Amino acid sequence: MSFDRLIEKIAEKQNPTVAGLDPKLAYIPQYIKDESFAKYGKTLEGAADAILTFNKGLIDELFDIVPAIKPQCAYYEMYGWYGFKALTETIAYAKSKGMFVITDGKRNDIGTTMQAYAAAHLGTTDIDGTEVEAIGGDALTVNGYLGTDGISPLLDICKNGDKGIFVLVKTSNPSSGELQNLEFKGGETVYQRVGTMCEEWGKELPGKYGYSGVGAVVGATYPEMLTELRGELKTTFFLVPGYGAQGGGAKDCEGAFDKNGIGAVVNSSRGIMCAWQKVDGLDPEDYAKAARNEAIRMRDDLRNVIGEMKLG
Amino acid sequence: MSFDRLIEKIAEKQNPTVAGLDPKLAYIPQYIKDESFAKYGKTLEGAADAILTFNKGLIDELFDIVPAIKPQCAYYEMYGWYGFKALTETIAYAKSKGMFVITDGKRNDIGTTMQAYAAAHLGTTDIDGTEVEAIGGDALTVNGYLGTDGISPLLDICKNGDKGIFVLVKTSNPSSGELQNLEFKGGETVYQRVGTMCEEWGKELPGKYGYSGVGAVVGATYPEMLTELRGELKTTFFLVPGYGAQGGGAKDCEGAFDKNGIGAVVNSSRGIMCAWQKVDGLDPEDYAKAARNEAIRMRDDLRNVIGEMKLG
Repeated sequence: MSFDRLIEKIAEKQNPTVAGLDPKLAYIPQYIKDESFAKYGKTLEGAADAILTFNKGLIDELFDIVPAIKPQCAYYEMYGWYGFKALTETIAYAKSKGMFVITDGKRNDIGTTMQAYAAAHLGTTDIDGTEVEAIGGDALTVNGYLGTDGISPLLDICKNGDKGIFVLVKTSNPSSGELQNLEFKGGETVYQRVGTMCEEWGKELPGKYGYSGVGAVVGATYPEMLTELRGELKTTFFLVPGYGAQGGGAKDCEGAFDKNGIGAVVNSSRGIMCAWQKVDGLDPEDYAKAARNEAIRMRDDLRNVIGEMKLG
Repeated sequence: MSFDRLIEKIAEKQNPTVAGLDPKLAYIPQYIKDESFAKYGKTLEGAADAILTFNKGLIDELFDIVPAIKPQCAYYEMYGWYGFKALTETIAYAKSKGMFVITDGKRNDIGTTMQAYAAAHLGTTDIDGTEVEAIGGDALTVNGYLGTDGISPLLDICKNGDKGIFVLVKTSNPSSGELQNLEFKGGETVYQRVGTMCEEWGKELPGKYGYSGVGAVVGATYPEMLTELRGELKTTFFLVPGYGAQGGGAKDCEGAFDKNGIGAVVNSSRGIMCAWQKVDGLDPEDYAKAARNEAIRMRDDLRNVIGEMKLG
């Protein structure tokens, strides 16, 4: 009912990184794609097969040093239901290796529908009396635009399991301020309001390291706001996108962490997945080793700024 | 690049209804489930098989009188990738019957990721030079919290096809006001601001009946706001949830329509799907006929209030 398990994995590996698995075909070595296309043709099935092979290779090289993965649903849905199957199999494989899985779906809806999303992504589905796990992640990103009754069904599921959610607060993209930075009459901004809602919702899911099971997505591309929000949202754990390809560096992430060096997990997707494309003369079969090297570089980069991660 | 096709179907059938297909197992007659469970067991595969049978039966009875369906992704994802396959097959079947398909996914993300969602739900996916349709809806519901660069990739895809999006403006749920009704310094509310953004985004996708390809979701449960927004957002077509099970009636929807009786499509999910459960002594095999009867009742209920739907 909190992010305790994620925080423990971060402390154990002394690495506050989550590897984003957003496997566009353009990021996958040609030899993998060729093998899959030989079996299934240039089809959705072929693409999904290549994605799963690519992901498993990455997970094999990352699981001992990186605590978590974050598959982005969009990059699986674009390969149809075959892609959704590859998403589910990727999640199962990462969990079998002991990784924490954050499903990046940014789901949102009214209460009755959020019950379905909660069952799908964090709980189990009742099939005429038999409970079955449909997708099986450990945490889900969600959008809070619909308010409390779009969040409550997730809290109910998280209470009964070892799960959590990350609510979009201040996103990493260039136009995030169009709505999120606007000020209400009292001077509070939209992102500050949603942040405060996270603190409120989090009271239902307390954790033993001071952070609840309701986290917030706050981009590394807006470091001042990251620092400000860390100061305001004492019990809200952060998922920080924007490191690497989106322009954020370790210094930009520093504000997300507390004095014990915990309080956030920093995502890198393209930086890790596409590392192999940036090494001159690399054998593409070593793509996962290149990802591992980049993950180690990133870990050390963050460690230099944050210091040791201590459990309270 | 607009909702012209949807508007023409509405005028042709003189029916501004979209049938929400949110097939929880509890809504499906036992005889359908028993047949599927006999083949596949009480599994995700069995559930997905029952859903598809149920949906096809509904579509067969609705396609000549209802212009559109709106499958809600959550109710497919809760049955895993088998459910996602049933979603895709439901969409294909409805399209083969000439229906307009609004995929209710409320997707949202940063620009690069929205390219993937746009390809998945409204466009095609490039598989090493071969373009393949992954899911195949006509329109997608989206959440505008991330601002313009989370919407632009959808506009680009819609420009090149006959597609559109519906952005959440004022949602139908009880707590929608927690964020959406808050007032900015100038007096504008969050939902009004997002509505104005829809008008701006819509300029890229003009339609011949006065409505762009960027629509807005506005709930029938807040009829005053529906009327207010119709007045303000002249070129924004509305998707109106909340009729029926959520408590809205035809009178509550009236404000969504213009003087020609167009401007909106009204959703009913449980009202139509579960109609069979409300008829005493009904043979469950007549579930789809009960849905048809309810769809006719709803059409006439709306027509009584709106009058004739005229194309300009």
